[in-house]
Amino acid sequence: MNYRFVCKHLGLLTGVLGASVLIISALDWFMWWENTPAEIAGTKALLITGVVGWLFAVILLGMGRKAEEYLGRREAMLLVALSWIFGAALSGLPYFLWSIEVTEAGHPFRDFTACYFEAMSGLTTTGATVLSDIHVLPTSLLLWRSTTHWLGGLGIVVLFVAVLPTLGVGGKKLFNVEAPGPSQPGVKPRIRETARLLWFIYVGMTIAQTVLLMFTGMNLFDAICHTFATLATGGFSTKNASAGAYTPASQIVIIFFMILAGANFGLYYHILQGQFKRFWRDPEFQLYLGVITIASVILIFSLYGNNLVLTDGTAIEGNVANTTLHSVFQVVSIQTTTGFGTVNSDLWGFVPKMTLLILMFIGGCAGSTGGGIKVIRILVGFKIIVAEIERVFRPNVVRSIKVGNSVIDPAMRQGVLVYILGIIAIFVIGAIALVAIEQNYGQGIDIVTAVTASAATLHNVGPGFERVGAIQNYGWFSSPSLAVMSLLMALGRLEVYALLVLFVPTFWRKP
Amino acid sequence: MNYRFVCKHLGLLTGVLGASVLIISALDWFMWWENTPAEIAGTKALLITGVVGWLFAVILLGMGRKAEEYLGRREAMLLVALSWIFGAALSGLPYFLWSIEVTEAGHPFRDFTACYFEAMSGLTTTGATVLSDIHVLPTSLLLWRSTTHWLGGLGIVVLFVAVLPTLGVGGKKLFNVEAPGPSQPGVKPRIRETARLLWFIYVGMTIAQTVLLMFTGMNLFDAICHTFATLATGGFSTKNASAGAYTPASQIVIIFFMILAGANFGLYYHILQGQFKRFWRDPEFQLYLGVITIASVILIFSLYGNNLVLTDGTAIEGNVANTTLHSVFQVVSIQTTTGFGTVNSDLWGFVPKMTLLILMFIGGCAGSTGGGIKVIRILVGFKIIVAEIERVFRPNVVRSIKVGNSVIDPAMRQGVLVYILGIIAIFVIGAIALVAIEQNYGQGIDIVTAVTASAATLHNVGPGFERVGAIQNYGWFSSPSLAVMSLLMALGRLEVYALLVLFVPTFWRKP
Repeated sequence: MNYRFVCKHLGLLTGVLGASVLIISALDWFMWWENTPAEIAGTKALLITGVVGWLFAVILLGMGRKAEEYLGRREAMLLVALSWIFGAALSGLPYFLWSIEVTEAGHPFRDFTACYFEAMSGLTTTGATVLSDIHVLPTSLLLWRSTTHWLGGLGIVVLFVAVLPTLGVGGKKLFNVEAPGPSQPGVKPRIRETARLLWFIYVGMTIAQTVLLMFTGMNLFDAICHTFATLATGGFSTKNASAGAYTPASQIVIIFFMILAGANFGLYYHILQGQFKRFWRDPEFQLYLGVITIASVILIFSLYGNNLVLTDGTAIEGNVANTTLHSVFQVVSIQTTTGFGTVNSDLWGFVPKMTLLILMFIGGCAGSTGGGIKVIRILVGFKIIVAEIERVFRPNVVRSIKVGNSVIDPAMRQGVLVYILGIIAIFVIGAIALVAIEQNYGQGIDIVTAVTASAATLHNVGPGFERVGAIQNYGWFSSPSLAVMSLLMALGRLEVYALLVLFVPTFWRKP
Repeated sequence: MNYRFVCKHLGLLTGVLGASVLIISALDWFMWWENTPAEIAGTKALLITGVVGWLFAVILLGMGRKAEEYLGRREAMLLVALSWIFGAALSGLPYFLWSIEVTEAGHPFRDFTACYFEAMSGLTTTGATVLSDIHVLPTSLLLWRSTTHWLGGLGIVVLFVAVLPTLGVGGKKLFNVEAPGPSQPGVKPRIRETARLLWFIYVGMTIAQTVLLMFTGMNLFDAICHTFATLATGGFSTKNASAGAYTPASQIVIIFFMILAGANFGLYYHILQGQFKRFWRDPEFQLYLGVITIASVILIFSLYGNNLVLTDGTAIEGNVANTTLHSVFQVVSIQTTTGFGTVNSDLWGFVPKMTLLILMFIGGCAGSTGGGIKVIRILVGFKIIVAEIERVFRPNVVRSIKVGNSVIDPAMRQGVLVYILGIIAIFVIGAIALVAIEQNYGQGIDIVTAVTASAATLHNVGPGFERVGAIQNYGWFSSPSLAVMSLLMALGRLEVYALLVLFVPTFWRKP
């Protein structure tokens, strides 16, 4: 194991995080700073975190000096796991520092576990919050909170589109199918080239959405924060009423960009190259749009005619326009695993709620910022099951399984099946753990809360139902539960393996 | 498709069922008959059913005359599916005929769907009942009810140990590993030979358990009925208090035979041949005993010191002896998917109930009368997941997956993974369907009831929790729900494929 290499890149990461914190603090100072105790404490917290980040950067870079420039699979996975684990600790520090100073606000982050949860929720682009009242936060921390989404989203796209396929990790080859990039000799130049293009696309989309949101009436601050949360399919808002606090025009812009963010970023290459056909003809993208459409239709039909209760508590008429807008918004928000809310979906009936729960498991496309099992795996899994049923009575007919033009080989098939089974197992264990923990440390929770909290964190969605519903929060959970859900968010975000291998003894042995 | 062959064997089946009904009626007449209106109606119902069965037998054998003696995979699967579907209809007829005559008893079987459910529950060895008071049934129908268990159990063992492996259906090869039998040329003689041996083992065990139960104080009638229900891992009792109505000695005998019935009947060959080592060294059998032991320990520790409430409502002290006996009894009863109860497990806490729910999914061994996913599949699935985790960071290391001395090839592995995923999908769809149906036709049900009812019928267990708990019943469900659960029982019992292929268009096309 090339530990020096891991230290060096972990040092680069803490350096980047430290710089980001300082940039955010400076931006806030020039644009939105007000002389209130909360704002002063927030800026102080960010400055200290920046210094701490750079201190770690210096130490880690020192430990990693003279590192061989060798990046193997095992190094990559260890680096990925540690990046999110330590990144969340550093990103949560501002909340903690702020919270111990601003006690008159009632200590909104009650301990470091709660801060860690909020930061992990940001970096994994989950969007689950421990805050019952977001408005207590100063602008500096609100901006930092949204920035963790943006950084986490960019990180995950680069990781899954540029880094892992190049290293051929796990079943990731599958998702490389549609992610080309110049095929240069050597791993690092290629990774760098692809990462540069992805960064370009991501920043371009950020500017586009921010401008469009401002056209629809949002102020610059809210536009930036909601753009960060949209493109990362995160879901942190600057308002208690989430996206419900804005105009239908803003909501339509958010729907459009959530759909873009939930699609494979590898596909945007083709658009940059003018190959729109390859974009539209991608089987995963087609199924992704298909699922959104079908789920929207189910919701519209089951909700039409009933009043809708907005996230701010006001009821509006369930006419065609309102029902359509809010059905589509909630479907896209949940399937892309963003988690913004415009209406209180927790008040809905069994059919629309069940539909949303199923969408959480499906999730976005591979190579997107979205979570969940991913549309491509659902597609491959479904094709395998159909083939298996036929094999029972026609064992001699061998059919290859294809997605688009690519044949899915047996190892890949096994990988997909194991992944789906593994995620289901983790989801069940997570729900059981939450019930068991809350029975001992907390207050006992109902099964719907436990099940949807486990699903909404594991799949990086954010809101669930009942006590973690659209207008609820995660702050009432006991600290051990918050720790479990922080782990679930990281497991889901890193597609399990990168974290799980840390606990496999043979991973640490010499190859 | 050789339809004549299917008709002929379906005719033989209805003939056998008709004969069984008449034999049961005659046995009851000589041994336990009393001159009560209920008993008279019961005997009449059985006689009519016997005649109907033979009428069908004549018609079907007529349609199947001159059938080619060719048994292919597709014929076998169609025959299996139709056997359980029509077998349940015929077996449910006595309940229906009796119920429309004995109206003073309050119409315990409210419609034919309820009768079909009870019969399907019998033949699939599930043991879920629609009766709130079992004691209203006359001895003739109680005996017939237990006999459906015994016939269904024998049928399933012959099917999975003798018929399907010989035909090489699906992933069944896996379960053939330990099921030898003389390897003669030609399929039919080998099937016949193996079936003959299984019948011999099954009858031997039936006599042994009946005698032992009588030694522990049961009367002949109860001993026969409970033996039938034990060896089939069914769970129908002749008492409302189930196995809780008998002495601890009887309960220990039942525990012992439930364990035997949940193991692979193919293994009993080895014992007949004096090869005890091969029996004890079977990896599936070892894991099966291991799971029973671990689950029992968990239950004993979490229940010790608390009073236990028996199925008849009386509370007893939670001392070591009582806690151990009833923990082991409930663990074995649920894991073997028998479903007998001695205590009201529905009153227990989260940990013991969750343990029992997990046991439902694990189930018995392949080639047993038990249901569930089967221990061997859990073992193989677990080994695949471990191998897959290692493959992520060591993609070039190829390890074969072994169970005992047999290598599990990739097709088999895929078969196991798809089966587990498929069962989970059906379980979820079942639970959703029950909630949706009861919301429309019934009264709305809680999630624990829906989830455990789906699991307990799909895995052929019988009792679940809450409104389908140990001392509850399924009679309050709406008829559409009973129909759905009848389908779930058949799907679980026939390991899905045999039924599912009926809905696959290519199954019906010429090969």
